[in-house]
Amino acid sequence: MREVRQMVPRMRERAFEHDRDASFPKADFTELREAGLLGIMVPGRLKGLGATFREYVDVAYHLGRGNGATGLIFNMHAGVTGALATAPDELAEELGAADYPARRDEILTGAVNGSLYAVAMSERGVGSRLSKMTSRYTRVDGGFHLTADKAFVSGAGYADAYLVAARNTENPDTVSQFLVPATDGVTVDPTWDTMGMRATGSHDVHFDVTLPPAALVGGVEGITMLAAQIAPHWMVASYAAVYIGVARAAIESAAEQANQRNLAALPSVRTRLGRADAAVSAALSTLRHAASLVDAGDPDASTWVWRAKLLAGDAAADTTASMMEVAGASAIRSGNPLERLFRDARCGALQPATSDVCADWLGVAALGGDPYATSEPRW
Amino acid sequence: MREVRQMVPRMRERAFEHDRDASFPKADFTELREAGLLGIMVPGRLKGLGATFREYVDVAYHLGRGNGATGLIFNMHAGVTGALATAPDELAEELGAADYPARRDEILTGAVNGSLYAVAMSERGVGSRLSKMTSRYTRVDGGFHLTADKAFVSGAGYADAYLVAARNTENPDTVSQFLVPATDGVTVDPTWDTMGMRATGSHDVHFDVTLPPAALVGGVEGITMLAAQIAPHWMVASYAAVYIGVARAAIESAAEQANQRNLAALPSVRTRLGRADAAVSAALSTLRHAASLVDAGDPDASTWVWRAKLLAGDAAADTTASMMEVAGASAIRSGNPLERLFRDARCGALQPATSDVCADWLGVAALGGDPYATSEPRW
Amino acid sequence: MREVRQMVPRMRERAFEHDRDASFPKADFTELREAGLLGIMVPGRLKGLGATFREYVDVAYHLGRGNGATGLIFNMHAGVTGALATAPDELAEELGAADYPARRDEILTGAVNGSLYAVAMSERGVGSRLSKMTSRYTRVDGGFHLTADKAFVSGAGYADAYLVAARNTENPDTVSQFLVPATDGVTVDPTWDTMGMRATGSHDVHFDVTLPPAALVGGVEGITMLAAQIAPHWMVASYAAVYIGVARAAIESAAEQANQRNLAALPSVRTRLGRADAAVSAALSTLRHAASLVDAGDPDASTWVWRAKLLAGDAAADTTASMMEVAGASAIRSGNPLERLFRDARCGALQPATSDVCADWLGVAALGGDPYATSEPRW
Amino acid sequence: MREVRQMVPRMRERAFEHDRDASFPKADFTELREAGLLGIMVPGRLKGLGATFREYVDVAYHLGRGNGATGLIFNMHAGVTGALATAPDELAEELGAADYPARRDEILTGAVNGSLYAVAMSERGVGSRLSKMTSRYTRVDGGFHLTADKAFVSGAGYADAYLVAARNTENPDTVSQFLVPATDGVTVDPTWDTMGMRATGSHDVHFDVTLPPAALVGGVEGITMLAAQIAPHWMVASYAAVYIGVARAAIESAAEQANQRNLAALPSVRTRLGRADAAVSAALSTLRHAASLVDAGDPDASTWVWRAKLLAGDAAADTTASMMEVAGASAIRSGNPLERLFRDARCGALQPATSDVCADWLGVAALGGDPYATSEPRW
Repeated sequence: MREVRQMVPRMRERAFEHDRDASFPKADFTELREAGLLGIMVPGRLKGLGATFREYVDVAYHLGRGNGATGLIFNMHAGVTGALATAPDELAEELGAADYPARRDEILTGAVNGSLYAVAMSERGVGSRLSKMTSRYTRVDGGFHLTADKAFVSGAGYADAYLVAARNTENPDTVSQFLVPATDGVTVDPTWDTMGMRATGSHDVHFDVTLPPAALVGGVEGITMLAAQIAPHWMVASYAAVYIGVARAAIESAAEQANQRNLAALPSVRTRLGRADAAVSAALSTLRHAASLVDAGDPDASTWVWRAKLLAGDAAADTTASMMEVAGASAIRSGNPLERLFRDARCGALQPATSDVCADWLGVAALGGDPYATSEPRW
Repeated sequence: MREVRQMVPRMRERAFEHDRDASFPKADFTELREAGLLGIMVPGRLKGLGATFREYVDVAYHLGRGNGATGLIFNMHAGVTGALATAPDELAEELGAADYPARRDEILTGAVNGSLYAVAMSERGVGSRLSKMTSRYTRVDGGFHLTADKAFVSGAGYADAYLVAARNTENPDTVSQFLVPATDGVTVDPTWDTMGMRATGSHDVHFDVTLPPAALVGGVEGITMLAAQIAPHWMVASYAAVYIGVARAAIESAAEQANQRNLAALPSVRTRLGRADAAVSAALSTLRHAASLVDAGDPDASTWVWRAKLLAGDAAADTTASMMEVAGASAIRSGNPLERLFRDARCGALQPATSDVCADWLGVAALGGDPYATSEPRW
Repeated sequence: MREVRQMVPRMRERAFEHDRDASFPKADFTELREAGLLGIMVPGRLKGLGATFREYVDVAYHLGRGNGATGLIFNMHAGVTGALATAPDELAEELGAADYPARRDEILTGAVNGSLYAVAMSERGVGSRLSKMTSRYTRVDGGFHLTADKAFVSGAGYADAYLVAARNTENPDTVSQFLVPATDGVTVDPTWDTMGMRATGSHDVHFDVTLPPAALVGGVEGITMLAAQIAPHWMVASYAAVYIGVARAAIESAAEQANQRNLAALPSVRTRLGRADAAVSAALSTLRHAASLVDAGDPDASTWVWRAKLLAGDAAADTTASMMEVAGASAIRSGNPLERLFRDARCGALQPATSDVCADWLGVAALGGDPYATSEPRW
Repeated sequence: MREVRQMVPRMRERAFEHDRDASFPKADFTELREAGLLGIMVPGRLKGLGATFREYVDVAYHLGRGNGATGLIFNMHAGVTGALATAPDELAEELGAADYPARRDEILTGAVNGSLYAVAMSERGVGSRLSKMTSRYTRVDGGFHLTADKAFVSGAGYADAYLVAARNTENPDTVSQFLVPATDGVTVDPTWDTMGMRATGSHDVHFDVTLPPAALVGGVEGITMLAAQIAPHWMVASYAAVYIGVARAAIESAAEQANQRNLAALPSVRTRLGRADAAVSAALSTLRHAASLVDAGDPDASTWVWRAKLLAGDAAADTTASMMEVAGASAIRSGNPLERLFRDARCGALQPATSDVCADWLGVAALGGDPYATSEPRW
């Protein structure tokens, strides 16, 4: 996993172009694939790297230092494989998913062999509320037919397969998940045109495909979000790592520019760098601690994950804004890394769980309440 | 001057396109011209609107609410005409500028008749340090020959004339100012590609022109920045007005989006709007007070101008960042006014005098020192 | 009213002792009385100073610079007299209060003659909710009998008379107000022992008194808070002035200490002073604008008053905290003005309407709602 | 070391009185002594608890949660014993201090047996600049005579012995350290009357004593600050732990008060608690990481220690200020734990290294400079 650190300068060099063109960071993923990092969360018995979550967040942090968009795309892949790798077999067994272990291993082995997975869960105007999901599947001869209109699919058009959630047409309460290979019935609608994190290409994707039985994740209907239920850290903490990396990149760039322009003696430059360094380091410490607790199955893990997300989103936004003041007016020029980092970083606190939601969640917890039950709903 | 208020919705509608294409807001200036606002700072005796500085800052504020870039371009024009209109005749007289009143009135009348003036003072790598200026002029038969490479010329290519500073080739200590009409020898080099305030088109402009004697501002060499010496408010306070307008536009847009999406009951939405409203209103109050003192020739005017600049730059950056959290993830989509306002606003504190410089200046003043003599140099 | 400015150094000298002992600032009020300032809000026809609200806030600001506690006590007096002086006669007439003008003038003349009035409205555990008020009065031969347990009575034991609200025993919906002279039946229970604003002596006061008919304010029962309904600015904006004065005093003291200890060249000292100066000046500008709108009867006055309160409370707390960092560790020593100002200032945002309530109120207003109807209740 | 956690409620109960009276928290130290915690930093071979620095900071954190003043006094003792316990024998050997190991063990054994050590290094107007130190010692028959006027001696009058630095009268460049038992020649001048951390009793102490040779720490002259040179973490990081504990205590108290008064549903209460919880947890994570690096002898340890100090000082001040807004106006009443915690917490950023110094130090480090060489001097 040390390769990621070494990739950082090369990713940075390519980041400008991908941001400008909102293009997929192909070369970044070629490097990640070649380094075997698509198998990062896959256990050693399947020839993956078998990373812990604690190890993963450091990888995500360095990806964020290189190119935040690459980090976010990779995150979805790591989330799919990481959640599958850590989902307890017993859960699947209880649900009667006899094929689960075999099917899971197939997916994980695919990752080791270089398949990049994307997640197609969200729908426009639905957010993460499953109850409003319009995507449907029907049992047909030889498998399933799936029609789905999904949004915010990071890596759209470049993933090798998509994890798609849909309802059973006849029994809408049953929501199942399918791994859909990138084939003819998968159409990308290039809707992603944003201020920041442009290169994630989180476009809309339309699915109209017939799938073999093996495409049903876990081999049984109704296993939704195996991952999400047991692994909220994949929805919250792994984003945090990327944004902390973005913030660190801003500090590094601002320091470099200040040195180049002989501004290092300016007290305002020093104090801005110093305070930013402390804030970003604090977010990183918090996240690493959260990740260790996740690995240990500690009941406090959730609380630390929410803390890390709040700190990361805020530190990323504040730090990049301040680092532009270090560099001065030249920081707004296209091509200056700081202006891209500033735009990318602003997305962090807005990604669910937003900073305001995190703060409310943590406040309820501090009051001794049950934050999952009573915290301010938002997305 | 009420017309400006009514222009706001139309300016807003056009702002997206000008930002995307980094194109000059032509229609905005057509409207301003038709409303006679190019003559805003010209005295009534020359058929101008004869605005006070206090009245002007409200106009600039509303331009900022409409399109910050328009406000900044207009600002340069208002600065040239405003400084000329208020420069004491005695100063010119002392300098032996017998033609000064007539020449000044010509320029001012030009504005009333619809000429838009731009300012071409800065040079790359020189900042505002006159001592490093490379632009030169020579006396020639029938006037002057001028060669100059200028940077950060807002409205480049669209102004009717440019106020250019240059040194006398034979006597480099003499810096004079010329009003150069937009003719063949004026070439725009489209270098302005920035994160924010894209539509100001503050490109590099190269001058290689022969000018009649009447082009010499004030009719006498060596009158540099008549304006700047006596009118620091044009360099600092008028920017502030535009950025406060940008911040207000963000509040208005966020409130509109929150209402449309039924988020008005969310406490975090309300508290963000409330705190932003207070901060922006405070900056506006401070600026208006500063402008009144400028008009009154009050010795405290400078201090209040620096306060206003600091507050405006910070309030603009903080407010637009917070308003994006009100609107949520949709705020980063291209086309959402908030993402443009966020990028535009970030430029405020970076424009000289930067927030850090303002804070230092004010700190020295609070300590009873002479801030012009001892404050931290920076740009 | 210029005398107040000159009183500042003398008030400051006495402030330490009054804070330490939580004692009433007698000498301050002797000076205020001698300068005729107890009649500040009384119209000229009654030989008062006839100050506008705009003029008053400057007086309150300077009192805050001298001793915040004196400012808050004076505020209650100014509120009583100011509200009476500006209450429209028509309102009283409608209510059948024939004697109203005469009785009002008596009270106002009392102030001109040197009577200090205190306000005894709040009750423990009741806050400002009139519906839970336990104080009662009964009509008796020759007037009224009143029994009341009041809390937070600034100036308790030193006021010449108290404005007390109570319910009619027989008709509890009728709440009336009485001006109760400081006599035997008025007992002070010294409950005020606080971190800040110690010298206000806002103790509990118990009333068990028989009053002549003339004690009934306005001469008619049921006129409650004539003032409060029409004059929210007395409940919110006038506090703001005092706390802005406290914040300014902290800047002045920090600058003085920095100069004495040769710290003026330290950049962190300068930037802290500069930013504090801008924030405090902004709050002051906002408040002055609010006060002008109050005087003009402008419908926007309320919104500006809430803005001023929010800004004042936050600026006072933030500024005094930062100024302690200017002075360094010596600032925590008893006797250093900054440690007192820091404790006093922290009370500002906590006094109703708290900063959080103000922010919510302003947020609702920014959303186009009716903040009085829908804003977060709190006190 | 778990006992400390259990002591917290009892320490809290006693804290009010010690703060009010600025009295030494005797019962706290009786408990600490009985739990063997005075030997916390003493190695197991001498029957101490042999804590790592990482373990120590958790103890200091919990002491801070109980009573910050107790934590700070204990800190000095832990610093003396911890620095001695970890000082490399080689250093002493090089200096020819043959008796060093034996003498060191005596001091450490004293701690295990219940002796509380205080530090008497600072002098008025000298700060930590050894070059201006006025304390002197002379060799006399049977040992040394020492005269010293020291300031900021936490635990003055209650320590069993004082670590005192002084110059050799004949050779003022030689600064030595003595462990002076609390005897007749040690006089406490009760100068400590402060806003916060009142119970540390950090009074001036005057020494006029004759000492046996064994009082010379390390048995050799010129070993100054054995500790400080090799262990900056004792000067910076251990304070941080106490202030983080103070901040956590404020959150706990505010949550308790909010629940008691049914304010838990208020969004502003929840968001304040949530954000404070994240900030304090981040400071704690950072400190714990710093402490682990100290134990590992990692070269990055210093940087993390400065980060922790900056975060702790700021989080303590900000958190306690915000928690008062959670509790509302009742928080300013004497007896409310929050008002004491607020006053205590404000001292954190002011204690060397101040937050401004830390920020500058970290900024220089971020720029790749040598912060010890070039950072802004201050104390």
